Amino acid sequence: MPDTLIEYEAATLEARAVFDDIMATRKVDRVNNFWKALAHDPKTLRRTWESVKEIMSPGALDAVTKEMIYLAISTTNQCGYCIASHTAAARKAGMDDAMFAELMAVVGMANETNRLAAGYQIPIDDQFLAK
Amino acid sequence: MPDTLIEYEAATLEARAVFDDIMATRKVDRVNNFWKALAHDPKTLRRTWESVKEIMSPGALDAVTKEMIYLAISTTNQCGYCIASHTAAARKAGMDDAMFAELMAVVGMANETNRLAAGYQIPIDDQFLAK
Amino acid sequence: MPDTLIEYEAATLEARAVFDDIMATRKVDRVNNFWKALAHDPKTLRRTWESVKEIMSPGALDAVTKEMIYLAISTTNQCGYCIASHTAAARKAGMDDAMFAELMAVVGMANETNRLAAGYQIPIDDQFLAK
Amino acid sequence: MPDTLIEYEAATLEARAVFDDIMATRKVDRVNNFWKALAHDPKTLRRTWESVKEIMSPGALDAVTKEMIYLAISTTNQCGYCIASHTAAARKAGMDDAMFAELMAVVGMANETNRLAAGYQIPIDDQFLAK
Amino acid sequence: MPDTLIEYEAATLEARAVFDDIMATRKVDRVNNFWKALAHDPKTLRRTWESVKEIMSPGALDAVTKEMIYLAISTTNQCGYCIASHTAAARKAGMDDAMFAELMAVVGMANETNRLAAGYQIPIDDQFLAK
Amino acid sequence: MPDTLIEYEAATLEARAVFDDIMATRKVDRVNNFWKALAHDPKTLRRTWESVKEIMSPGALDAVTKEMIYLAISTTNQCGYCIASHTAAARKAGMDDAMFAELMAVVGMANETNRLAAGYQIPIDDQFLAK
Repeated sequence: MPDTLIEYEAATLEARAVFDDIMATRKVDRVNNFWKALAHDPKTLRRTWESVKEIMSPGALDAVTKEMIYLAISTTNQCGYCIASHTAAARKAGMDDAMFAELMAVVGMANETNRLAAGYQIPIDDQFLAK
Repeated sequence: MPDTLIEYEAATLEARAVFDDIMATRKVDRVNNFWKALAHDPKTLRRTWESVKEIMSPGALDAVTKEMIYLAISTTNQCGYCIASHTAAARKAGMDDAMFAELMAVVGMANETNRLAAGYQIPIDDQFLAK
Repeated sequence: MPDTLIEYEAATLEARAVFDDIMATRKVDRVNNFWKALAHDPKTLRRTWESVKEIMSPGALDAVTKEMIYLAISTTNQCGYCIASHTAAARKAGMDDAMFAELMAVVGMANETNRLAAGYQIPIDDQFLAK
Repeated sequence: MPDTLIEYEAATLEARAVFDDIMATRKVDRVNNFWKALAHDPKTLRRTWESVKEIMSPGALDAVTKEMIYLAISTTNQCGYCIASHTAAARKAGMDDAMFAELMAVVGMANETNRLAAGYQIPIDDQFLAK
Repeated sequence: MPDTLIEYEAATLEARAVFDDIMATRKVDRVNNFWKALAHDPKTLRRTWESVKEIMSPGALDAVTKEMIYLAISTTNQCGYCIASHTAAARKAGMDDAMFAELMAVVGMANETNRLAAGYQIPIDDQFLAK
Repeated sequence: MPDTLIEYEAATLEARAVFDDIMATRKVDRVNNFWKALAHDPKTLRRTWESVKEIMSPGALDAVTKEMIYLAISTTNQCGYCIASHTAAARKAGMDDAMFAELMAVVGMANETNRLAAGYQIPIDDQFLAK
């Protein structure tokens, strides 16, 4: 819905403030379509950005690890937009070709064994059970 | 199906060889229920183990990162067995409480924004499009 | 597959009868691509329409609530066709911008907490357990 | 919710008629919990049974093939109840150990390559495109 | 993991403040296991609660509609904990048996047609396309 | 990402060997985009092909049954690429219009009842429980 994306000029003051913070935090001069679309609902735009900002900033896990996990989930969920945007984000954060290749291999394998475990109705090992 | 798990003594020679390699590779003296269940189909047991062994050995990504990605996907897919076993595996590979907490936060957020992107029918940004 | 959609003129008598009932029930003069595609299998076309007609007619829940639930699920499942068509259907049934915004916020949040509950392996509270 | 299952004696006349048809069609003397639970909503009970009856009766595909497809999907969706009940149904329809083993192998592989295709953002081959 | 739930007495001051707000907002004298588990990560506990509180308070959609949407998604995602807890929450917000029955019928149907639309590779109708 | 597909001429020797085996096994003179994309990671290309080759060769289940199961899963997962390519593969293996129609009907129904079973929180029947 390209023409329903809200550009900076057309955004509410509340949405602009979020756009400003995204650009300042990420040191970029534009925001992605994701944020332009959410600007239709400034409350969700603000809440989502604040959550993303808090969650994705480096902590016990570094930025590229977090972005690769994001991409793993987006791939599992078949979200086309998210795969495209988070592949770019992970690349920017340092994911090189070899890391991408290994990431995809793990994503594929986990999705496979998740179903083998379910289909074989495998009981949880005693030592993995919450005590 | 506890009584349909195949223990070492009851396993075929082909399955035992896989069990042996799992125990040697992981330096453990038993295999998880997952492998005991797959022993019903030695061909799938062997193929799955060889794939897991190749994919999960450290490379461009280290072991704990790979295990956390596995856990992220298992959580997204609501696979109870896999969540339990890969939480244990990730812990063993070095995931501490802070890493687990951040992992879960990313998993939750990615699953949320995957749906916001879909529901708002957001077009992929030109710069993210494959050229 | 635009050229495999079956238009009214090319449809079987059984399929035309379903098309007629869809148009009469919805007070429209055409049917969506969904029905034109299902016309390849008149039995599934008829069964699906009869089920949709029974389920989506207002009852304990009104039409717009049912359409929003349909959209919530389509969004969760990343079904592009369904998101587009049920956004239109929900709008027609009365969903305005504010309702859409809140719907999407709930969809995002539910998808997030569904994974937090799974990943933290949270036991069901006693009072929620079926007795 | 065992105590919310509706047994034959407690069912409405409409629900009993469905129970009777299920038992007659399947040549069994009881119905599964699935139907006892749906008896809370006789309309959904009837509609679901009529659809299942029409869809699952042998046609271009035989009964065991249909049951294995049902199990493949239930496994992909991580539906514990459905995996248990459709494993039993497929066994009853003729699925032996070797067929189950190959079914699970395909289910696992398809779930893996579905994600590789998504993550690598692979464009559809021209010859596979709807014309 | 019952023994890893954090009760009020064992919670950090930050977590207790969230527990207090949950109890005050919902006019209850205890919090669900979900919150007790998240208390392991006070930051995620706080952020998740603040988001849930903002999103689930009545607005353009009333409380019971929001809870039913939450339940629809939890059911689609096969999240056992979420199905149990949000069935209870929707009941408390006013969902009666008839509403539950219709909700489940819509959830089932949407999940069915989502796949028919995908499998038949149905192109989006021109009038549904974002302009 | 058309320009990131690796054609035979540009492929590594390891990747070419896999391409050769795919063409020889399937008696075709080209490989699908899926394999050209995986050629970026020859190890995953090789492992995936060897697994697919082993799993998809006729055994207890014939080729068309395996391809239909693959398509059922791809449809459930909303994988556009996989739906297109495995519809073609299933057609080639012998799936005719009537088989496709019945396959889709089962896929739709299974996705529906998977959610009814979850939403009604139906306990597994004693006779289906693993002993």
